[in-house]
Amino acid sequence: MANPAYSAAELAQRFGLELQGDGAVRVHGVGTLARAQAGQLAFLANSKYRGQLAESQASVVVLRTEDAAGHAGTALIARDPYAAFAKMSALFEPEPARPAGIHASADIAADAHVDASAHVGAFVSIGARSRVEAGAVIGPGCVIGEDCVVGAGSELLARVTLVTRVRLGQRVTVHPGAVLGAAGFGLAMEAGKWLNVPQLGGVVVGDDCEIGANTTIDRGAIEDTVLEEDVRLDNQIQIGHNVFVGAHTAMAGCAAVAGSARIGRYCLIGGAAGVLGHLEICDKVMVTAMSLVTHSIREPGEYSSGTPLMDNRSWRKNAARFKQLDALARRIGRAPADREDQSG
Amino acid sequence: MANPAYSAAELAQRFGLELQGDGAVRVHGVGTLARAQAGQLAFLANSKYRGQLAESQASVVVLRTEDAAGHAGTALIARDPYAAFAKMSALFEPEPARPAGIHASADIAADAHVDASAHVGAFVSIGARSRVEAGAVIGPGCVIGEDCVVGAGSELLARVTLVTRVRLGQRVTVHPGAVLGAAGFGLAMEAGKWLNVPQLGGVVVGDDCEIGANTTIDRGAIEDTVLEEDVRLDNQIQIGHNVFVGAHTAMAGCAAVAGSARIGRYCLIGGAAGVLGHLEICDKVMVTAMSLVTHSIREPGEYSSGTPLMDNRSWRKNAARFKQLDALARRIGRAPADREDQSG
Amino acid sequence: MANPAYSAAELAQRFGLELQGDGAVRVHGVGTLARAQAGQLAFLANSKYRGQLAESQASVVVLRTEDAAGHAGTALIARDPYAAFAKMSALFEPEPARPAGIHASADIAADAHVDASAHVGAFVSIGARSRVEAGAVIGPGCVIGEDCVVGAGSELLARVTLVTRVRLGQRVTVHPGAVLGAAGFGLAMEAGKWLNVPQLGGVVVGDDCEIGANTTIDRGAIEDTVLEEDVRLDNQIQIGHNVFVGAHTAMAGCAAVAGSARIGRYCLIGGAAGVLGHLEICDKVMVTAMSLVTHSIREPGEYSSGTPLMDNRSWRKNAARFKQLDALARRIGRAPADREDQSG
Repeated sequence: MANPAYSAAELAQRFGLELQGDGAVRVHGVGTLARAQAGQLAFLANSKYRGQLAESQASVVVLRTEDAAGHAGTALIARDPYAAFAKMSALFEPEPARPAGIHASADIAADAHVDASAHVGAFVSIGARSRVEAGAVIGPGCVIGEDCVVGAGSELLARVTLVTRVRLGQRVTVHPGAVLGAAGFGLAMEAGKWLNVPQLGGVVVGDDCEIGANTTIDRGAIEDTVLEEDVRLDNQIQIGHNVFVGAHTAMAGCAAVAGSARIGRYCLIGGAAGVLGHLEICDKVMVTAMSLVTHSIREPGEYSSGTPLMDNRSWRKNAARFKQLDALARRIGRAPADREDQSG
Repeated sequence: MANPAYSAAELAQRFGLELQGDGAVRVHGVGTLARAQAGQLAFLANSKYRGQLAESQASVVVLRTEDAAGHAGTALIARDPYAAFAKMSALFEPEPARPAGIHASADIAADAHVDASAHVGAFVSIGARSRVEAGAVIGPGCVIGEDCVVGAGSELLARVTLVTRVRLGQRVTVHPGAVLGAAGFGLAMEAGKWLNVPQLGGVVVGDDCEIGANTTIDRGAIEDTVLEEDVRLDNQIQIGHNVFVGAHTAMAGCAAVAGSARIGRYCLIGGAAGVLGHLEICDKVMVTAMSLVTHSIREPGEYSSGTPLMDNRSWRKNAARFKQLDALARRIGRAPADREDQSG
Repeated sequence: MANPAYSAAELAQRFGLELQGDGAVRVHGVGTLARAQAGQLAFLANSKYRGQLAESQASVVVLRTEDAAGHAGTALIARDPYAAFAKMSALFEPEPARPAGIHASADIAADAHVDASAHVGAFVSIGARSRVEAGAVIGPGCVIGEDCVVGAGSELLARVTLVTRVRLGQRVTVHPGAVLGAAGFGLAMEAGKWLNVPQLGGVVVGDDCEIGANTTIDRGAIEDTVLEEDVRLDNQIQIGHNVFVGAHTAMAGCAAVAGSARIGRYCLIGGAAGVLGHLEICDKVMVTAMSLVTHSIREPGEYSSGTPLMDNRSWRKNAARFKQLDALARRIGRAPADREDQSG
């Protein structure tokens, strides 16, 4: 596929940026500042990489005013070069054809509703009473169970499962292998055997959310599991039943949130971080990678747990001492530690 | 769908509970004690929430004798209100139709056997010599390879893969995206390249087990990977080849068990916890979330590793000191730590 | 299925091993040294298990010269018994039939190319401009998007997704549920909302790689995510966009590598270990299970983080002291710790 090409002047005009240099220069794709070739658009968002600017073969560079001074090539000046680049690079993203209509192989319940403008791909199942709204895209191999809604403009890329009672808002993207609405892990022990607690709630996902590949979001036990709008979940995240995630919160890959935890808005949960069940995390909390949140967090800020990486020999020596920490502390005469609950 | 409705007297009778109040009151669904509406059944299992009882709009509440005293509304008295509620709420769980028979699109090997009472959904593949027994349900998009058995009354919800030599007992539930019987991670290095060790074993899953969404259970190298009966695995759990999991053990989401580990009965493995390979864990061990089991456990009880969550600034200061722990301990004159193997 | 049988003499000859004992003894399968039955081949690679040799019912045992001395049964002598056993046991691995040709149900874009010697199973989708090369196997339920290549002799077992711009080399194996080429997690915040950064790169996987079940490998933002040849990834691994993994590196289950990290050759990344974004790890680094790599590693060797497993009561006491570690260290007169960046 030949990509479309755009002149620097066109880009400046379309995206409201200031042009510096030759507006007739054309770009047909993107590159990194260090490795872009002629005909490519690159960006400089972090002044740390300014040294790459002079050497860059990029035909057009998006950057800040302060980095543009003295740059000989064509530049587009933006307050936030990364965001401006993101929007411009969407021009070069190939859009696979997803024509309106239902593939002949799809298996759709008689009382399901698919909008005439939606696309339903090959080998898709749609269950009773489910709705696929205007312009939605259901990629190949997806399974939608009973009583689900895929809102207008949403896309399930491929092999996504919505088990039951999953309602997606508008413009939601769900990547392959994600499973929404599976039964939450609710168990009661009776007479030495596990008894399943029926999971009668659903999953509600707000507008503009994104759900990563192989991520799982369980449906609620009684009430719903809820993601507000613009929540961004990376791959292989696990969201337990009845979790609530506030708007604009983003979680990196492999994070896990146990049942009934409540996470605020504009939080950033690091990769492989964990949140125990029934906790509350306020707005604007950042949790660093692989940390475990073992108590509620009531103040915005950055939180961490874990120990530093060391060569294994040093680590063994120090880790062995961790077992003596309380004894060591007592020996040097420190008052007993306050016993916060860090159980988990 | 209109839910069925049940009177308090009917529920008391059917589930062997003591009725207090008006037996004619009817419920058609469930709610939480705090948010239930008229017509709903709620429960009070933890006396901590007893304050919600007076305000609750629930028409019927399941609770303990000691919490029922003075309650003005209709109550069902149970020794274990949570278990009783679990059983009653199953009455309100919509059961999707899964009629006996094989969907026209399914692709079934000539020498596979599907019982006439089983349900096989759309876009299902079943390989050579595999068996689907009485009343089993194979949801849409499942792939069953060669030499597998799905026992009577078991259900693969959707998009489950049984790769090869996977034998499920009776009443096993497998949630979407789970992969059982993939080749274990067996490698030998030869002349600077990896050599695959063929994985000739299978996976044996006992009666009444439940396997969560996107969980993976590898087949054994020579012998089988084994789950005894009533093992409960949440989502995104990884079980390596030749692992043995004892009956009634439950693992929370994202736990991982490396190859040839042997876990006892009635264990509780916390979310994102890990167990190293070739270890043994005795019965009735609880491992807290995100802990790493680095040595065999021979005494029942609760086990943990990790450090407490702190604000990032404090954490950095303390974590930096972890690297000096051995030196600090020596300085205060403590005898050298016993060097247990904590490698991993 | 009756397995084929081989005499010890045949095996010695075919695999270049020294025969000790009766070359006419035949084996038709494999077993562990401890539990093998007559007619089975076993191995002894670790002299620690030498005690099992005398009792073993295995008809033939592969072992080292030094372990063979005094063994009364039939033995095949190898320098590396485990590697020799791996190669021999492949003789007993049932190979499911995967005949050349395209299943009638498969949905293949008009401009996709499938080699006549390739196998394409039931319910497979192949998108525009994608290529499946000679002898490749695409198992049931796989979805291949646009502009992908499955190299000669590669196999996607079942329900694998290659989203877009994924190029697999030759003899690559991808296990069920894996998702390659999903959009990387690239976000920019603008005016209080997340903006997607288009992910215009692809994924390049070298020859002889293996990708585990439900593993995810995101496509690059501008350039490609790259695995060199003979990289071995276990199940449920997450590889972020623009990661580079050097040849012959192996990662155990649930490891996670954040965006733009660069990992060397012949590394061993333990189960559930994490690597932060934009770091570099040199060749021949081993990271133990559940460790978090928070800074670049420039020396080969073994690296770890974390704390030892303890009974929960002891752990609580010691973990509480971790919060006082800096204060304790100051009290005993140690100079302030060097403040390495361990943020994450």
